[in-house]
Amino acid sequence: MLALVCSKPPRLDPSRAEPVRTPGEVLLGLRVGGICDTDLQLARGYMGYQGVLGHEFVADVIDADDASLRGRRVVADINASCNRCEVCARGDGHHCPQRSVLGILGRDGALAEQFLVPAHTLVEVPDQVPDERAVFAEPLAAALHVLDDLPHEPCVVLGDGKLGLLIAAAIAQSGRRVTVVGHHAHKLELARAFGAEGVLEQELALTHVAAVIEATGSSAGLTRALSLLRPRGTLVLKTTVAGASDVDLSPIVINELRVLGSRCGDLSRAVQVLRSLDPTPLIAARYPLSQAEAAFAHAASKGTLKVLVSSRG
Amino acid sequence: MLALVCSKPPRLDPSRAEPVRTPGEVLLGLRVGGICDTDLQLARGYMGYQGVLGHEFVADVIDADDASLRGRRVVADINASCNRCEVCARGDGHHCPQRSVLGILGRDGALAEQFLVPAHTLVEVPDQVPDERAVFAEPLAAALHVLDDLPHEPCVVLGDGKLGLLIAAAIAQSGRRVTVVGHHAHKLELARAFGAEGVLEQELALTHVAAVIEATGSSAGLTRALSLLRPRGTLVLKTTVAGASDVDLSPIVINELRVLGSRCGDLSRAVQVLRSLDPTPLIAARYPLSQAEAAFAHAASKGTLKVLVSSRG
Repeated sequence: MLALVCSKPPRLDPSRAEPVRTPGEVLLGLRVGGICDTDLQLARGYMGYQGVLGHEFVADVIDADDASLRGRRVVADINASCNRCEVCARGDGHHCPQRSVLGILGRDGALAEQFLVPAHTLVEVPDQVPDERAVFAEPLAAALHVLDDLPHEPCVVLGDGKLGLLIAAAIAQSGRRVTVVGHHAHKLELARAFGAEGVLEQELALTHVAAVIEATGSSAGLTRALSLLRPRGTLVLKTTVAGASDVDLSPIVINELRVLGSRCGDLSRAVQVLRSLDPTPLIAARYPLSQAEAAFAHAASKGTLKVLVSSRG
Repeated sequence: MLALVCSKPPRLDPSRAEPVRTPGEVLLGLRVGGICDTDLQLARGYMGYQGVLGHEFVADVIDADDASLRGRRVVADINASCNRCEVCARGDGHHCPQRSVLGILGRDGALAEQFLVPAHTLVEVPDQVPDERAVFAEPLAAALHVLDDLPHEPCVVLGDGKLGLLIAAAIAQSGRRVTVVGHHAHKLELARAFGAEGVLEQELALTHVAAVIEATGSSAGLTRALSLLRPRGTLVLKTTVAGASDVDLSPIVINELRVLGSRCGDLSRAVQVLRSLDPTPLIAARYPLSQAEAAFAHAASKGTLKVLVSSRG
């Protein structure tokens, strides 16, 4: 089968062996996949991942222990946790030390004609949510997870990339006032279409903000975020800056800030929100799976929003 | 009057003008004062403070609008907030932008024969709490404030200085299991006397800790703390490391940690806890106010626990 395999750059393998389903697992057929910045980092060697890329998808069930699932249109939690250890028992399955993660850690990903996920991770997609919305379920779940840590007050998203914009959309649909701060007028227009405000970095006049979400992916963004917050404000960190950061952290203590790391979220919640939230304006390009290498190169070019890969066409 | 004035090093002024009370303020006479690391930093130029040092004290009321207060033995919140602005209205008076802070910002401190505090900051000391306990009310309030952010689970205090030990005592009296990690066997003995466990840094085997309190005052402590925490764990930062810190912050996002800055606390709560908690084993030395310069030099020598200054004797 066709599969996009992690390497530098990723390569399309036309004869990858089809996965063999075991009990507890579900065999899926890709409908649409998405390329995310984590995929770009994996292709550069992050985590030493080897295998098929892809963890954003909507797919059809080809085979499962429960035969009634066949033909259902689904998404899935990318964290295949063990559900038996102490961490899972605490409700922290996303951090299960025994877990595999679809297309990221110890489990082939979704940018292939077929792939496997544990049955307990499946979430069915309602008919009202078309494929090109459903493929955003995983990043939207991560964006919605930010809300769990936010006060119900006006907040600022730093960064107008695809993650920042999706977070802004998630916050706006929650009824909070949210301002996206970025460097690109056309992306800030998208933020406004999602119900957020959009402000160019050099025009930002806000201070004493109750909550800031850092989604720039740079340590300069962290320093900026700390300077914007009011005492006892909340900073949610979404993007990882690997390696040492040269940041003055004293404002965290002086202003008694709360700094919260935030990663994966609840897929069921995302699928529900996708009934009303349309993230498809974030789509920059669509490619067939047979052109997944070109899709990846496009996604890797600076400033590109969401690139989708479809198994059909 | 005698007063210890901020300079490098601090100097005793034998003829400082006595403060003149205005309405709303209370004139206090020092009984016992304490020297804290912030005083050492102020003397090195931190915050550009000029004036009388000292913000840890127990004192007698000499004069007040309410004549019935005369002769009462008191401590006080060091933050003289305006009680009128938006920040105060939110309950964040400790961060009031108009505030003065006793012996730190815009208000002469307590290491003098007499000094002033706003009447609304006073907390009366019960007879059962002797002076040498009461003088710990301010740092103990800050230590108890840590509890507001802690899960009810075993936790670790990094740092066996006077702040780390006082925090450990505060946590132990709350019923939580707490381990102090440090470099000094005799200080870890004190931790044990407070009901904590004490472990030398090089012998520490703990991992996957639910909560860590960073009280080492170094950026290396922050890196160490991040490495000890389990996913979704809580890190409370008590000590400020001014300037840029060369720390890899990616564990905050990867492990979805909560990092919480923590400063001043509630003096009334501290006074209540001092009925049963005896912090006097932390006292390293006692000096009369007339020898406050020597007291300060002693406090500034590395590894010294609490140095007290008394107006009598």
